[in-house]
Amino acid sequence: MNPELAIGIDIGGTKVAGGVVDVDGKVIQRARRDTPHRSKNPSVVEGTIVEVVAELMQYAGPETVVAVGIGAAGFVAADRATVVFAPHLSWRHEPLQAALQKRVAVPIFVDNDANAAVWAEWKFGAAQGQTHVMMITLGTGIGGGILINGQVQRGRFGIAGEFGHMQVVPGGHRCECGNRGCWEQYASGNALVREAHSLFSANSPIASDLLDSVEGVVDNLTGPLITQAARDGDPTARELLAEIGNWLGVGIANLAAAFDPGLFVIGGGVSAAGELLLSSARETFKRQLAGRGYRPEAGIVAAQLGNEAGLIGAADLARFSAQEQAD
Amino acid sequence: MNPELAIGIDIGGTKVAGGVVDVDGKVIQRARRDTPHRSKNPSVVEGTIVEVVAELMQYAGPETVVAVGIGAAGFVAADRATVVFAPHLSWRHEPLQAALQKRVAVPIFVDNDANAAVWAEWKFGAAQGQTHVMMITLGTGIGGGILINGQVQRGRFGIAGEFGHMQVVPGGHRCECGNRGCWEQYASGNALVREAHSLFSANSPIASDLLDSVEGVVDNLTGPLITQAARDGDPTARELLAEIGNWLGVGIANLAAAFDPGLFVIGGGVSAAGELLLSSARETFKRQLAGRGYRPEAGIVAAQLGNEAGLIGAADLARFSAQEQAD
Repeated sequence: MNPELAIGIDIGGTKVAGGVVDVDGKVIQRARRDTPHRSKNPSVVEGTIVEVVAELMQYAGPETVVAVGIGAAGFVAADRATVVFAPHLSWRHEPLQAALQKRVAVPIFVDNDANAAVWAEWKFGAAQGQTHVMMITLGTGIGGGILINGQVQRGRFGIAGEFGHMQVVPGGHRCECGNRGCWEQYASGNALVREAHSLFSANSPIASDLLDSVEGVVDNLTGPLITQAARDGDPTARELLAEIGNWLGVGIANLAAAFDPGLFVIGGGVSAAGELLLSSARETFKRQLAGRGYRPEAGIVAAQLGNEAGLIGAADLARFSAQEQAD
Repeated sequence: MNPELAIGIDIGGTKVAGGVVDVDGKVIQRARRDTPHRSKNPSVVEGTIVEVVAELMQYAGPETVVAVGIGAAGFVAADRATVVFAPHLSWRHEPLQAALQKRVAVPIFVDNDANAAVWAEWKFGAAQGQTHVMMITLGTGIGGGILINGQVQRGRFGIAGEFGHMQVVPGGHRCECGNRGCWEQYASGNALVREAHSLFSANSPIASDLLDSVEGVVDNLTGPLITQAARDGDPTARELLAEIGNWLGVGIANLAAAFDPGLFVIGGGVSAAGELLLSSARETFKRQLAGRGYRPEAGIVAAQLGNEAGLIGAADLARFSAQEQAD
């Protein structure tokens, strides 16, 4: 029996993924459900979360689990209890922690999913030993987390790390947040797919192989398919990824100017493209960084914990916080 | 005799301003010299600094001064001893602290001038009692400082807070740093003057009153003159300041998305325009902030310590650090 297990839950727009995580950050059991579709009633999603927790508790032995951590794709208040705004879950000022705590016997903490991910990469992954880390998660949008001297930086209201909504192009592409020109419209999975679609719309011959790969069905083209085509040598797919990487480098140079971290960790689904993405990001970063040549420069590396960083980090942060509360 | 005095020195491109600062942040004596003109020999500037320190020591009584703090317009390494890069002073990897310490008997600390300013505003000015503060100093360019829970955040290499070199317009105006589209090319004193000049070049009749105010000598138009004209009701001068304020708001919204402070403090010479600048900054900020309407929002206020924030902060930070070292 391991008396120091924690459960981590990663809630996204499409799935609720849970795992039992040991003190070394290893996921020893998993469970998942589909996220109830944009339910207007938050209690439906809460029910799903409680189901996943119960299933994992059962497996681990309830007496071994010391805490539950929730990583949510949304703005989480500094109290780590309230989801202020989660567009994909239709949550507004949702007291998630209180609702769940009534139904679960161990302490529960809620955090933004990218905050959980930066903690996981720092404890167990690519950022071990670093003092100043910025995590950038590239999925359909961009999430972010900041960690300084072993502490997740949540900002005054809990909403730090929303890097994806920094404006990089005045009057640029419209964003879900209501603004134009947000970084995540240029450096994300959605941007990758949009740019491929615009090549199709232009009937560009350079995109014909990509179009053939989805048998002419434009809507079937996804980010992972573009990445696979790039790996297989398709020059247009490589160009599309390099363009995303270029915008990634622009934003990283901006963040480096403002916060000067030692390391940027790039995670999320799009980071599976690896060097096809990161080499162009590094190149642009080095060209854009203010004071380049006169100053030390941050590293840019791929995340190591893949899709489970959020789940692992949520669990480990919750264990850490429960211990802090007990001391 | 007050045994807890500290000397602060603010080194800019044009002047070396010094002061004796008491524990309440009050400047009880001042001294200043012109900065030796872009001397290729750093020891000339060092000589000037030592002169100012000696003059102030003499006044205060050497035995009452516990530390000397230097606030420099440049990149200062995390060791608070080395100026890595200071474009206006021709310093590159200059071991300023070591050079000065040979000639001054009390502990010396070097810091970026905006880092010193944010400390001063938090201890004695507009940001008292705040936990998460971002300071933006608008002079010829933009400087910045970050303070969290009473600690100046210098980043991994000491160079955090260079907000002015975040890119806001791809392919935009060329910046001294070598890039294009840096924020300080759109929201600074230089930007204000450049935009006025471009109205003159276009022979725009809306700028004729401004041009008359400098008797037709374009090069005599300065930021402070534009601010004065705006105060006096000149509509073009007001428009120019509102445009700078608009870009200020864009950048503040970006910083709020990334770092989520509770308060932005706007200092530096251009901030003398007060509400003529800040009201349009607030308006744009509220329109651009991601998640607006669903989240708490940071305040945007004018600095309270004016031009002496850097000097006061450098002195007080040095006193604080000397005490920390002694304990």
